[in-house]
Amino acid sequence: MPKIKITLPNGSVKEYNKGITAGEIAFDIGKKLGEDALIAKINGKLKDLFLPIDEDAALQIITYKDKEGIEVFRHSTAHLLAHAVVELFPDAKPTIGPVVEEGFYYDFGISHHFTPDDFVIIEERMNEIVKKGYSVERIELNEPEAKRMFKGNKYKIELIGEFHEQKQPLSAYKQGDFIDLCRGPHIPNTGKIKAFKLTKIAAAYWKGNPNNDQLQRIYGVSFPEKSMLEAHLKLVEEAEKRDHKKLGKELEWFNFFEESPGAPFFYPKGTVIYNQLLNFIRGEYKKRGYQEVITPLLYDKSLWLTSGHWEHFEEHMFKLEAEGKEYALKPMNCPSHVLIYKSKSRSYKELPLRIADFAPLHRNELSGVLVGLTRVRKMSQDDAHIFVAPEQIKEEIFRLLDFTNYIYKDVFDFEYEVELSTMPDKHMGELEDWNKAEESLKKALESKGAAYTIKSGEGAFYGPKIDFHVKDALGRRWQLATIQLDFQLPERFEATYVGTDNSKHKAVMIHRALLGSIERFIGILVEHYAGKLPLWLAPTQVRILTVADRFEEYANEIKTEFEKKDIRIEVDARTESVGYKVREAQHQKIPLILTVGEKEEKNSTVAVRTFDNNVYFDVNTADLLEKTIKNIEEKKVKFEI
Amino acid sequence: MPKIKITLPNGSVKEYNKGITAGEIAFDIGKKLGEDALIAKINGKLKDLFLPIDEDAALQIITYKDKEGIEVFRHSTAHLLAHAVVELFPDAKPTIGPVVEEGFYYDFGISHHFTPDDFVIIEERMNEIVKKGYSVERIELNEPEAKRMFKGNKYKIELIGEFHEQKQPLSAYKQGDFIDLCRGPHIPNTGKIKAFKLTKIAAAYWKGNPNNDQLQRIYGVSFPEKSMLEAHLKLVEEAEKRDHKKLGKELEWFNFFEESPGAPFFYPKGTVIYNQLLNFIRGEYKKRGYQEVITPLLYDKSLWLTSGHWEHFEEHMFKLEAEGKEYALKPMNCPSHVLIYKSKSRSYKELPLRIADFAPLHRNELSGVLVGLTRVRKMSQDDAHIFVAPEQIKEEIFRLLDFTNYIYKDVFDFEYEVELSTMPDKHMGELEDWNKAEESLKKALESKGAAYTIKSGEGAFYGPKIDFHVKDALGRRWQLATIQLDFQLPERFEATYVGTDNSKHKAVMIHRALLGSIERFIGILVEHYAGKLPLWLAPTQVRILTVADRFEEYANEIKTEFEKKDIRIEVDARTESVGYKVREAQHQKIPLILTVGEKEEKNSTVAVRTFDNNVYFDVNTADLLEKTIKNIEEKKVKFEI
Repeated sequence: MPKIKITLPNGSVKEYNKGITAGEIAFDIGKKLGEDALIAKINGKLKDLFLPIDEDAALQIITYKDKEGIEVFRHSTAHLLAHAVVELFPDAKPTIGPVVEEGFYYDFGISHHFTPDDFVIIEERMNEIVKKGYSVERIELNEPEAKRMFKGNKYKIELIGEFHEQKQPLSAYKQGDFIDLCRGPHIPNTGKIKAFKLTKIAAAYWKGNPNNDQLQRIYGVSFPEKSMLEAHLKLVEEAEKRDHKKLGKELEWFNFFEESPGAPFFYPKGTVIYNQLLNFIRGEYKKRGYQEVITPLLYDKSLWLTSGHWEHFEEHMFKLEAEGKEYALKPMNCPSHVLIYKSKSRSYKELPLRIADFAPLHRNELSGVLVGLTRVRKMSQDDAHIFVAPEQIKEEIFRLLDFTNYIYKDVFDFEYEVELSTMPDKHMGELEDWNKAEESLKKALESKGAAYTIKSGEGAFYGPKIDFHVKDALGRRWQLATIQLDFQLPERFEATYVGTDNSKHKAVMIHRALLGSIERFIGILVEHYAGKLPLWLAPTQVRILTVADRFEEYANEIKTEFEKKDIRIEVDARTESVGYKVREAQHQKIPLILTVGEKEEKNSTVAVRTFDNNVYFDVNTADLLEKTIKNIEEKKVKFEI
Repeated sequence: MPKIKITLPNGSVKEYNKGITAGEIAFDIGKKLGEDALIAKINGKLKDLFLPIDEDAALQIITYKDKEGIEVFRHSTAHLLAHAVVELFPDAKPTIGPVVEEGFYYDFGISHHFTPDDFVIIEERMNEIVKKGYSVERIELNEPEAKRMFKGNKYKIELIGEFHEQKQPLSAYKQGDFIDLCRGPHIPNTGKIKAFKLTKIAAAYWKGNPNNDQLQRIYGVSFPEKSMLEAHLKLVEEAEKRDHKKLGKELEWFNFFEESPGAPFFYPKGTVIYNQLLNFIRGEYKKRGYQEVITPLLYDKSLWLTSGHWEHFEEHMFKLEAEGKEYALKPMNCPSHVLIYKSKSRSYKELPLRIADFAPLHRNELSGVLVGLTRVRKMSQDDAHIFVAPEQIKEEIFRLLDFTNYIYKDVFDFEYEVELSTMPDKHMGELEDWNKAEESLKKALESKGAAYTIKSGEGAFYGPKIDFHVKDALGRRWQLATIQLDFQLPERFEATYVGTDNSKHKAVMIHRALLGSIERFIGILVEHYAGKLPLWLAPTQVRILTVADRFEEYANEIKTEFEKKDIRIEVDARTESVGYKVREAQHQKIPLILTVGEKEEKNSTVAVRTFDNNVYFDVNTADLLEKTIKNIEEKKVKFEI
């Protein structure tokens, strides 16, 4: 029997009989891997597990833990859905069934109009197909065979024609009696799809074109384990409760109007949050040697030509004309700060020069992709550009890592991950500069002891960058802070400084935003804390509830004392039950709810209910005030008596 | 002799012989008036003093105290200039010589290129013409006569043709041998022009069109008294020294770049001033029940159609397109606030609702009229819109007068004047509403005991308004705060509230900005204080100068103590002379300059130099810190030890 050599990801080489399948090798490596295996990566290409391997190859077994495994798993669930639908609705014509962010969908040409009631019978039939544990088969086809096979489905016929024209190989996948035109790969058996749920129906058009046939789209999610589906559904439910668009409107923190798509209106309470964040960052700027500036929003085209934005970013800029000249609203602050930097000759003594700006930025995003505060057309960043000499890069990055860690870990108690993105294929500038810059970033990360992943080739075209991904309370990852090195803008604008040698040198720019977009950051905070913001950020920090009218005076005395210390406090002296007033205050996400009655007035105390729903009785009012001030000053996430 | 009846401005009627001149009547009324008289207003029309009056008429004698008097005086000085120029440069062709804001100019077609050296001989010749005391004569002409008279001057010939076509009467004015085509009126004698000065030469084009002949323009100023010219020149000199554009650049507070015309860049120090002003206003808002919001800048055309801006303000808005829809950058905040107001049903209990906003506003001003911070394309206002019930107008206006007085008188120690502008001919809404509104404004002004002038018919088309004019250190008046009543926007947007009667009522809006544009206000502050801003606003509040290196440590100790109290302080420990360091600190307009040496270190004191250049020795450092904190907190204009 001829042998072949299989190289595994850990570098070890195993010998097998020619014609062995990746599925078999997986079981040879271990039973668990064999059972979890979904597809194979053979010499870097994704292949079905059940195909024979005839030559020496590098092999990686792909499971649901891998991104590719998840995608193929979802794609196979789309086939499962189509399989069930054509059995239940014989006139249904499957078209395409791709993977999307959360799961998959399949578009059908069909006379029946799907309703959520159909989900029950479709899911039931899908379950039967899963239980039957059909093996999945790949069939290679030539064009006439393919056209014969799909002759009743005009959509597939059209696709076959196109693929043939593009000289793409044609293949189909078969499970039981169901055959779908597909390039694959697929998981080897329908039995692996242990948990799924259909989630949504939508109208669609063949190839997304409203002039074509209307199709019926069914969305779904799927997982290899029931527990994962349950966890997912719980997450969705929790995420819906925390949805910042919903909470923002309910709490009157922020809202949107169709007159200004993608541009949030921060109501008075939301503006408190916004301004508290700015004040926080401004306080840090003072300690960390940043200088704030206020800059224009509209700039002449000539500036954008020099900066390269006209070439690389034009479609995302709002452009207008005045007196025959073209202007654009700035999507980024960088060129504004280069203008300031260049307004006079700079000496090495002035570096690092840290210019900070909260200017509103505008990006012409398609209205279809706008999402609450997280995808907007108008926003402000806690943006700064730092001009440094090349030898200052490492030290400055070190400071920035410290600053970022302070914000995310110390203040917001977020877990975060760090990624270093290196030189992309399409880049500007010299290799030597890139190497130096990447080395500086690595050294800074390492001397900080920060764990980080390298994203090879994913840097910006002008320089490498460090991105920070924050994990929220629901385990979702959000890309927030970014620190980018830039050799190109200083080159394009001739931003230099006079060195110790009395001659001119090119400066290096660091672009950095740590909260990122303030709008997006608020959206994420609201969802992370489910609206229960830390005391220092809460629009109303304290509400005092009276148990009866006659304690209003005492409540107001407390209010006055707290207000003297700039605490945002209200009194609810309405003649409603305390229970009702507590529920209302909780609904409004007020961190500290104080109740006052006879005993409290006599003892100069209050009863305190924190946002964790802990209740403390007979708390001395003066002590509470002190603890409140301290909690705010220290920007604590929790409140403890 | 036939008699005519002349009615004077005070209502008295005098009888004169038919054919008397206004100049004679002026002398009859009084010698002083006769000597000061420049022109006459006869039945509301400006006429030469020397023309006979043949019918009963209302007469007002116009002197230099009247705006019209100043204009005619300047126009006559332009003739005086042309008179001198044609005598000195026989090939000079006078074209036109109008009045401008500060004085006048005259454009000449001439081969010679004027230089400031020519001013001496031209001014000398002008003086001679003044001394000769030529009487001025008016000559009525028909077209052929006029063309004959000006046959050597193609520009005048062109004008004559045009006037004739437009059926305008033709006339010329003659003094000595000099004749100019002019509709008049003019002052009666060249001898009245007692003081003048040529100020500037500029290139110009015939009719402002670069395709036409190039002309030479000479600017000048003139006055009826030498002392007035001297005062004017001193004011110009002082104003130049205080010019905020010059100071802003020198002090690195703010600057402009051609890439963004009319949009200031506030450098770090200027941003401190800007943010201090915002903090000041925000502090007042807290005390006075205002709620700040953050709003979008770009709005769909539909909003501007509803608000009426598209109709009344379109040419001043920057417009752009996205996804086939028209948007405009907001020039004002009002519609944004109406959207917020209307986002839910409002009860009378919520009124007055005071919504404040510092959003950047954009106005598409012609680049030619832009001036530093005082006439810009981008600015923010300390803007607020107050929604009130009609019966709350008076009380709210009263509060606003108090707020304005606090800012202008108590904080900045400005003198100011108040104007009430009433219903214009072109107005919207019911007379009854207007009457009520004007009455409310008057009552509020009167119960405040505020002196005010009524500007009849100068209100906005949507309601009456109160404007505040501030007088700066050079006596110049600046229109700043404005309080405007508006019945129209609530009508157009159907902004209502539910009253005590449980039915809907139309709200009234008050537009108000007290600093006005923050940018403009800063420009005026810089000129008013000649850069020496009050301590609380100064970008750097204190600088410590060491008399020798070894006192740097002591200086830094003081710095640390002051910084703990958020005072903006620096140390100048360079090995330069104290005198040099003082001059530099003064040049940078630093309010408090401290000097430390041996004695000061030993005694824990400092020597203090205030911005009034008062010097205090041996001031206890702790005492000074306390006084500094107090001065900042109280926003004092002066600093006293």
